[in-house]
Amino acid sequence: MSFQNPVFIPGPTNMPEVLRKACDMPTIDHRSPLFGKILNPCLDGVRKVLKSETAKVFFFPSTGTGGWETALTNTLSAGDTVLAARNGMFSHRWIDMCQRHGLDVRILETPWGQGLPADRYEEALKADTGHRIKAVLATHNETATGVRSDIAAVRRALESTGHPALLFVDGVSSIASMDFRMEEWGVDVAVTGSQKGFMLPAGLAIVGFSEKAMKATATAGLPRTFFDVRDMGKGYDANAFPYTPPVGLLNGLKLSLDMLFEEGLDNVFARHHRIAEGVRRAVSAWGLELCAVSPDLYSDTVSAIRTPEGFNATNIVTRAASEYGMAFGVGLGEVAGKVFRIGHLGSLTDAMMLSGLATAEMVMADLGLDIKLGSGVAAAQEYYRHGSGKAKKAAA
Amino acid sequence: MSFQNPVFIPGPTNMPEVLRKACDMPTIDHRSPLFGKILNPCLDGVRKVLKSETAKVFFFPSTGTGGWETALTNTLSAGDTVLAARNGMFSHRWIDMCQRHGLDVRILETPWGQGLPADRYEEALKADTGHRIKAVLATHNETATGVRSDIAAVRRALESTGHPALLFVDGVSSIASMDFRMEEWGVDVAVTGSQKGFMLPAGLAIVGFSEKAMKATATAGLPRTFFDVRDMGKGYDANAFPYTPPVGLLNGLKLSLDMLFEEGLDNVFARHHRIAEGVRRAVSAWGLELCAVSPDLYSDTVSAIRTPEGFNATNIVTRAASEYGMAFGVGLGEVAGKVFRIGHLGSLTDAMMLSGLATAEMVMADLGLDIKLGSGVAAAQEYYRHGSGKAKKAAA
Amino acid sequence: MSFQNPVFIPGPTNMPEVLRKACDMPTIDHRSPLFGKILNPCLDGVRKVLKSETAKVFFFPSTGTGGWETALTNTLSAGDTVLAARNGMFSHRWIDMCQRHGLDVRILETPWGQGLPADRYEEALKADTGHRIKAVLATHNETATGVRSDIAAVRRALESTGHPALLFVDGVSSIASMDFRMEEWGVDVAVTGSQKGFMLPAGLAIVGFSEKAMKATATAGLPRTFFDVRDMGKGYDANAFPYTPPVGLLNGLKLSLDMLFEEGLDNVFARHHRIAEGVRRAVSAWGLELCAVSPDLYSDTVSAIRTPEGFNATNIVTRAASEYGMAFGVGLGEVAGKVFRIGHLGSLTDAMMLSGLATAEMVMADLGLDIKLGSGVAAAQEYYRHGSGKAKKAAA
Amino acid sequence: MSFQNPVFIPGPTNMPEVLRKACDMPTIDHRSPLFGKILNPCLDGVRKVLKSETAKVFFFPSTGTGGWETALTNTLSAGDTVLAARNGMFSHRWIDMCQRHGLDVRILETPWGQGLPADRYEEALKADTGHRIKAVLATHNETATGVRSDIAAVRRALESTGHPALLFVDGVSSIASMDFRMEEWGVDVAVTGSQKGFMLPAGLAIVGFSEKAMKATATAGLPRTFFDVRDMGKGYDANAFPYTPPVGLLNGLKLSLDMLFEEGLDNVFARHHRIAEGVRRAVSAWGLELCAVSPDLYSDTVSAIRTPEGFNATNIVTRAASEYGMAFGVGLGEVAGKVFRIGHLGSLTDAMMLSGLATAEMVMADLGLDIKLGSGVAAAQEYYRHGSGKAKKAAA
Repeated sequence: MSFQNPVFIPGPTNMPEVLRKACDMPTIDHRSPLFGKILNPCLDGVRKVLKSETAKVFFFPSTGTGGWETALTNTLSAGDTVLAARNGMFSHRWIDMCQRHGLDVRILETPWGQGLPADRYEEALKADTGHRIKAVLATHNETATGVRSDIAAVRRALESTGHPALLFVDGVSSIASMDFRMEEWGVDVAVTGSQKGFMLPAGLAIVGFSEKAMKATATAGLPRTFFDVRDMGKGYDANAFPYTPPVGLLNGLKLSLDMLFEEGLDNVFARHHRIAEGVRRAVSAWGLELCAVSPDLYSDTVSAIRTPEGFNATNIVTRAASEYGMAFGVGLGEVAGKVFRIGHLGSLTDAMMLSGLATAEMVMADLGLDIKLGSGVAAAQEYYRHGSGKAKKAAA
Repeated sequence: MSFQNPVFIPGPTNMPEVLRKACDMPTIDHRSPLFGKILNPCLDGVRKVLKSETAKVFFFPSTGTGGWETALTNTLSAGDTVLAARNGMFSHRWIDMCQRHGLDVRILETPWGQGLPADRYEEALKADTGHRIKAVLATHNETATGVRSDIAAVRRALESTGHPALLFVDGVSSIASMDFRMEEWGVDVAVTGSQKGFMLPAGLAIVGFSEKAMKATATAGLPRTFFDVRDMGKGYDANAFPYTPPVGLLNGLKLSLDMLFEEGLDNVFARHHRIAEGVRRAVSAWGLELCAVSPDLYSDTVSAIRTPEGFNATNIVTRAASEYGMAFGVGLGEVAGKVFRIGHLGSLTDAMMLSGLATAEMVMADLGLDIKLGSGVAAAQEYYRHGSGKAKKAAA
Repeated sequence: MSFQNPVFIPGPTNMPEVLRKACDMPTIDHRSPLFGKILNPCLDGVRKVLKSETAKVFFFPSTGTGGWETALTNTLSAGDTVLAARNGMFSHRWIDMCQRHGLDVRILETPWGQGLPADRYEEALKADTGHRIKAVLATHNETATGVRSDIAAVRRALESTGHPALLFVDGVSSIASMDFRMEEWGVDVAVTGSQKGFMLPAGLAIVGFSEKAMKATATAGLPRTFFDVRDMGKGYDANAFPYTPPVGLLNGLKLSLDMLFEEGLDNVFARHHRIAEGVRRAVSAWGLELCAVSPDLYSDTVSAIRTPEGFNATNIVTRAASEYGMAFGVGLGEVAGKVFRIGHLGSLTDAMMLSGLATAEMVMADLGLDIKLGSGVAAAQEYYRHGSGKAKKAAA
Repeated sequence: MSFQNPVFIPGPTNMPEVLRKACDMPTIDHRSPLFGKILNPCLDGVRKVLKSETAKVFFFPSTGTGGWETALTNTLSAGDTVLAARNGMFSHRWIDMCQRHGLDVRILETPWGQGLPADRYEEALKADTGHRIKAVLATHNETATGVRSDIAAVRRALESTGHPALLFVDGVSSIASMDFRMEEWGVDVAVTGSQKGFMLPAGLAIVGFSEKAMKATATAGLPRTFFDVRDMGKGYDANAFPYTPPVGLLNGLKLSLDMLFEEGLDNVFARHHRIAEGVRRAVSAWGLELCAVSPDLYSDTVSAIRTPEGFNATNIVTRAASEYGMAFGVGLGEVAGKVFRIGHLGSLTDAMMLSGLATAEMVMADLGLDIKLGSGVAAAQEYYRHGSGKAKKAAA
């Protein structure tokens, strides 16, 4: 196992070596002032990535799933009603978590491949004249289907109905890779993790709480200690954690943020778009279709690609791993066997992406799909290459 | 910041370089068979460290605090009664967590520096004829006071009273450094973390559940998703996690277990005892006393050292860090300012320990304490050194 | 600079992460027995790679150039005559070194792109009835032209003429990547370095001396101390170096050898051939030609590719670096501007190679060459892919 | 083997982790502009460390021994006369190298433990009225005896006699740890390596050539290619090497220089002096003596400590390694068995040094020497500790 090929799972992503080296820290005294010099730039930097001036940012040694639980348990009480659309595996799992925590979930069932139905959110909010709905859940980027939804539209649904519910957004596979505007979109809790756009190992839940969400912590009845944002916040006031912090990961996050800002967030987003668009052109050249039903929904971090009827898409992932040492993502839940996924987020170059597309072509050809070798690569190359007149610089 | 000196905080510990390199892994597909080859040896190895044939072992991307929460939320329901002694900061915090989760805690207040009062546990259990007490909490090693308690005695209290309560043990700063016998002591949930005896970065809660504890998960009413051991167990059955696993940490744990078994657990415990005994002889040579009130309670992983009346022990820690670049532990809670702590667990050699003792001496002398330079070092050297007739081999 | 793309220079090669970690060693006492445990497996392993039972192997903190100097200075005296063909930049440089050391070089000028002219070697040896020629120099793989020559044929030239000259072979860019048979071919000094087939950083000259070459050290008059193989050999007898050894590099070499033997040398050679053949099919699909004039000369470690008349091939290398962050090799000496080189040795996968080919296509298209995007990639894919009936396993 | 203890050999030194990480670089194209960004700061920085405005600095993938050979072969011709004192193993070896390269060495035999005899240098130079002596060799710091000599005095000997010979200085174990003034002392060739004051792995010879030395390259008749400074200099003019450069080591050197300048050279020297003085006080407390015969000769990088008559000092080194996992240096040559050496150069803290002294005490006590445990440690602590009135800051 030589770990030479890049991975194309939709997270954890390929990690830049400098970030891995920053994570690989010797032990320091996490109660010493040194820790504050690692923690505080992380808090400031994540706030900037979330595009919020006022959000409280928290890090938990956990994952995105822990981030969801942080959102729920710090703001809600058993029996509270929440509104959520289910349009993929990750929105499904968050709904399941709500139910297991004794929340009453009004579910907007939505075909997988479609975006969040802002109109149906609005309808449901309008109908909730008693304001029983305490929180609205929205998955910004459905990692299972490669669908990016319009969070601003969900906010407009809340505004047009004058509904006071909190807005919780799962940005696990979008934040730091695609534009996310916590303040402008009125997001009350934003959730992500270390292992996607931040290009780090898994192990950190990263959440942002609006002032309104922070207020809700005073009345929230769900039990929590590990994920309690008030304890965590008190810790931060003393440059500390309420328990042992994952110092190395935070040190990596500090450098990750430096790298993102040095490249420029807009450039980071543009790079993700460029690489993703190349993948989409390859898919089109192959004669295949995305799970996402329309271009406005196309995710720049992951593409779920439908394979022909009767073909088990999971075989592509299995064979790519066993024969070519390359990792793609399988279809999950409703689309298991129907799609395979190419993750194209985090630290990637055009050349790396082309190696993924070229390998996918070999696998599909091996498996008898009618794919012309080189066809998708050529379509992506045509998009990626720098025309003589163009001044585009590749991400080195 | 050159990170050259060892740390003497009571965890996270000094990390062997090979373990850090094992943690520093490139991204793999955590849904591939490769992950099982990392996970399964960890499960088997930890079970062996816990000295249990039957325990179910679980790893959560979290810390020891998350391990406590795992114990409670998977086995208990709001309103349940638990019995716990409070003899230090960590037993205090676990009690606080119980209360915040709506449990009714019968607290055996115990002076800090003393061990768990098995007789009073027995008394309380005997009085609980209606078996309202569902769980008994016991802190094996109080990191705040350097006190190791007798868990077998707590089990005897349960047995002599025929009480069916579960026994939960916090072994965060004991497991893998001092003898721990889950099966023999009848422990139902054992809790530890990656950053102590396992010599890894913080980031993993490690728990063992007895069969009886697993049965309790069926009726436990406290909400949990992230920390749900049934979900986690289902994941393991498929060589997977219910969410993104911390692959690098697990890879490090796999190697840590190999190293512990290669050295031999008994040798690991003997090494901890030897190094700790040297520290205790130094303390005695300095004319100081431990917080732990009697030798049977002395911890082999951390020593809390009382300083003279009127002296602020925290100054030792502050000055050691600022002037000598060395980290010791401050006193916490009731003993804040009264003790400083020397952590001596994990990956340590005699030579490293002597550098800690020598530095402590310089700091104490600087601060005006009546400490003869070299006196504690000499006492430890006398204990550590290999007499001409002895065949003791130092841990290289 | 994120170092994400593989490099395609003809060495130093891409380094497997495990090898880099093995090189990155803390300081040990190089006079302790530990050093022998690193050194001796390296000596044994390299002898095995050289396919010799009897060669003395030596490592110098140096490079291949230092290896050449080691060959000359330990066996020859000022004024001695040597015979060498010049068919590329590296054979040219070795000849230059001979001249600067006061040797009289009979040069067989050979067009670049051609192999060593065994017939002209034979002719020159036959003519040397007085046996003034003390050594015959042969470059196994001309890195500048991508030409692998037939060393066995040079040996036959010596044998057929009954000439007693020593045979020195530069195997810098062949050894450990392509078959090399020191014993069978009667090689007296074999020279290589750490940074090619051994996949390590530059910094080690690696040489093998036959018994006959060792005998020549007794009479050799050229001054040497640093590169003296007798001093070095005496050091090895005591598990030591005559000066400070590069311990980390040797530790890396030890693991590199383990990896090569675990894969199997024949499999290593077959992998190099497979990847190289894919490159050659791409070149052919592009309508271009190799510098090597015939298939029997094609190197499996580097391809020098001729570009059309009037086109400056160096622009490909410059643009690939500046626009796509990818490194290829420029043409050197006589073929500067006429060829660009793709290194395909060391630690490479098919997927990595395809990313190099895809990038080369984009660059050539950008620069106005008549290259169909995807064409070379498709030719390589067709060769690399595992047909349904085939059981070929990719190097993961 | 856990590599936890610091080493106390007189080089290679303990390496700061950041330097090791800087050396551990992925492969770059060493012909790309990136290489110049690594090389040029190294050239400038080393010149600054040498305290010369005009010296040409060269790096060879080699060791200090290669540096000596560089000095000789680039400036001298076979049959030339050089003048050198022999007062230890390293001056002995350099003389041996001269002889093997056909130079006529006038040797000033000097008892080991004494410094270079400036008066006898002067005498010899005065007697050399015909100016046959082309170069004067001087070892700044004799690593075998822990003797630092007065190079300025040797320069005065040249000046007072008006002798035009070149002055070559071996500064392998002094440069970057103790003050070295190439310009002020009129040094023509200064030689060092990467593995001492620069705190890097072995593998780089580092030399500085004065203008006068550069001129001598034009007439020097000794053969050289690998170590030719003119080829190397031509390479640097093109931001390149004449052969494959050790990129990682140079990248480490770049950071090492940054670290040295950030600390301040004078502070670096003061730190070495402070740590060395503590060692000397310990030696005195043990009732032992240094090999260096007077305080003006005491080296701040290595102490050679004489043990009592009839005691084999090498046993200390052997036992420290086998029983305590700690590395000291053995006596070499004339003082083999009579001294053991403590290296105290490079990256060290007081606490680390105290662990070395404490271990040495245990070993000596084990071996029956009349050493009071803690005595040397106490003497060093008294010197190292920061009195309440003092504002000394420890090197963290």
